[in-house]
Amino acid sequence: MSDFPTFVEFHEEGPREGFQLETVLHPIESRIRFIDALSRTGISQIQVGSLVNPKKVPTMADTPELFARIEKIPSVKYTVLWLNRQGFLKALEIPDVTLEGWLYFYASDALARANNDRSAEQMRQEQLDFVKLYEQHQVPVTTASIMCAFGCNLEGEVSTQRVTDLLSWIREITVGRGHSLPTLMLADTMGWASPERLKQLIGAVRDIEPDMRIGTHIHDTRGLGLANVYAALQMGVDLFDSSVAGLGGCPFASHQTNNTAGNICTEDAVFLCEELGIETGIDLDSLIEAATIVQEILGGQRPGKIMHSGSLSRFRSKK
Amino acid sequence: MSDFPTFVEFHEEGPREGFQLETVLHPIESRIRFIDALSRTGISQIQVGSLVNPKKVPTMADTPELFARIEKIPSVKYTVLWLNRQGFLKALEIPDVTLEGWLYFYASDALARANNDRSAEQMRQEQLDFVKLYEQHQVPVTTASIMCAFGCNLEGEVSTQRVTDLLSWIREITVGRGHSLPTLMLADTMGWASPERLKQLIGAVRDIEPDMRIGTHIHDTRGLGLANVYAALQMGVDLFDSSVAGLGGCPFASHQTNNTAGNICTEDAVFLCEELGIETGIDLDSLIEAATIVQEILGGQRPGKIMHSGSLSRFRSKK
Repeated sequence: MSDFPTFVEFHEEGPREGFQLETVLHPIESRIRFIDALSRTGISQIQVGSLVNPKKVPTMADTPELFARIEKIPSVKYTVLWLNRQGFLKALEIPDVTLEGWLYFYASDALARANNDRSAEQMRQEQLDFVKLYEQHQVPVTTASIMCAFGCNLEGEVSTQRVTDLLSWIREITVGRGHSLPTLMLADTMGWASPERLKQLIGAVRDIEPDMRIGTHIHDTRGLGLANVYAALQMGVDLFDSSVAGLGGCPFASHQTNNTAGNICTEDAVFLCEELGIETGIDLDSLIEAATIVQEILGGQRPGKIMHSGSLSRFRSKK
Repeated sequence: MSDFPTFVEFHEEGPREGFQLETVLHPIESRIRFIDALSRTGISQIQVGSLVNPKKVPTMADTPELFARIEKIPSVKYTVLWLNRQGFLKALEIPDVTLEGWLYFYASDALARANNDRSAEQMRQEQLDFVKLYEQHQVPVTTASIMCAFGCNLEGEVSTQRVTDLLSWIREITVGRGHSLPTLMLADTMGWASPERLKQLIGAVRDIEPDMRIGTHIHDTRGLGLANVYAALQMGVDLFDSSVAGLGGCPFASHQTNNTAGNICTEDAVFLCEELGIETGIDLDSLIEAATIVQEILGGQRPGKIMHSGSLSRFRSKK
C-alpha cells in the first residue's frame, strides 16, 4: 500500500528561517552554539544563513562571520542561501561552503512579481542565466525548486499543468547542457498542500520524469505539515526541507495574522520517520536538545511538539 | 488505495479540555459566548464540561450552571463528562443533556492505577457495573473507550493483543445483554500513536469485530496528530474527538515539560477533511471564529494553525 523510502534526508533550514524574521540581532555566540548543536545531531545539511540585502534583512548581515566561526563537521554540508547573482558571488568567497546550483521557478505569476518584480515567465527564462553562471564557476546544478506549487494566496489554486509545464524547460537547461537531471523541490510556499493533492502532483511529475528525485519544502501554515510529509513518504519521497523547533513563520501579509507557522518541524518529522521504520541518520534526542537551545535563545514557546513532550526512547528503554 | 469515509463526525471537547487545566476561573459569560459560537458551526456534539470532584478540578465546578445558560440548538448534542457513579448521577439531573453510556477500559495497568487507584483488570470488570447503572436509568450504552491504546509513558509499548483482548468482554457486556455493539474509541492518551501503528491496530480490531464503528481520540503530543488523522481516514474512520484551537494539554507529569500539546485541533482536522473531499457538516470559517473567541478568553497563542493563517475560501473565491 505504501512505498516508503528506506532512508530520508533532511535539509535543516532553522538557522536561516529562525533568525531572518527576528527584529533583534541575537548574539553571534548564541547562534554558533545552536548551529554547533545541530552539527552533532547527524543531520546531513544545514543552511547557516543567507546572503541577501543586509538593509532588507539585517539579521542575516553577519552570515559570513557566523559561517566562519561555526564548527564544521566533515559529514555535514553547510550551505547559504542566495537569491541573485550578487548573492551567489558573495557565497563563492565563503571558505568551506557547500555550493550547489539552485534554480527557482514560480507556479504563481503574482508571487514571482511580488518577490522579484518579474513575471513567472521572466523568472523561468532567467534560470538559464543562473545555469550559465554556475557553469562559469564550476558549481554543479543540483536542484530546481518550484515555488507555490500547490496554490498561492495571491492567485488561488495552481493547476498541475502549471507545474508540469516547467519540466521540459528544466530538462532542457540542465540535461540539455550536459548536467545531471536536478532534484525537484516542490515548495508549498503558502501552505496550500494537502495529502492527496500532494500525491497527485508527485504522480503527475513522475509520469513525465520518472527518474527525477523529488523533495518537498512544506510549510505547516494550515496544520497539515506532518500529514503532508506522511503522504509524501507514502509516495517514496526521501528529501525534506525542515526547521528544528518549527522555526520560521510566514511573512506573507495576505495570511490572516502574523503568527502563522513556518516550515515543518525537523524533530517531529524525524520522529514520524522513526516510527515508520525509516532511517534518517539523525539522533532524535540530540535534535530535541538543539531545539531546546534555540528556544532558549529566541524565547517564547516554539511550535515544535516533541521538544515539549520528549521522545519515546526513555519510556521504551524502561521495559 | 484509500478508503475515505464520505462524512466525518467530530466531537468537540474544547470547552472541557480548554478550561479544566486553567488555574483561573474565567467568567461564565465568556465561556457561554464561546460555546454558543461553537453551536453555530454545524458541529454535531459538544462536551460542555465535566462532573468531577470540584476540589480537584475547581474550574469545572459550575458545569451545571454553564450547561443551563448556553443556547441549546436542537441539531447539537450537548454532553458532560463523568468518571464515576456519582458524576453520572449528577449528570442525570441536568436538563437537556445528552446521556450516552460510556465505558472506559485501560490498555495500561499503570495508568489505570494512577487515574483510578485500580488495576486495568479491576477497571475492566467494573465496566459491567456501569452497564447495569446505565440500564437502570435507560441510558443507551454507546461507546467503549480504550485508554493508552498505543502506548503509555508509565508502561511503554502497548501490544495489539492488549487491546484486542478487551473486545470479547466489550461484546459480552453490551451485545450479550441486548445492547447494540458500541462504538470503539481508540484513545492515544499519551501521544504514542503513529500512522502505520494506528492502521495496524484498526485492522486488528476489524479482523475480530468487522462491524464495530471505530473512532479515535488522538493527542498531538508528539506532533503526529494530523498525520494520524489522515491515516485513520485512509482506514475509513469517521469519528474523531478534537478540540477547537488545539485546546487542552497533557497533564501527565512524565512528559518532559508542561507545555505538551493536547487534543488534535478541530478546525485543522476539518480543513484536512475538506481538502480530501470529505463532508463534515461544519462551516470552517465559523469554527475558526470560535477558535479566535476562545483564544481571546484564554490569552496567549493557541496551537491551532489555520486559525492564524485563515482558511483558503477567501483566496479561492477570488478566481
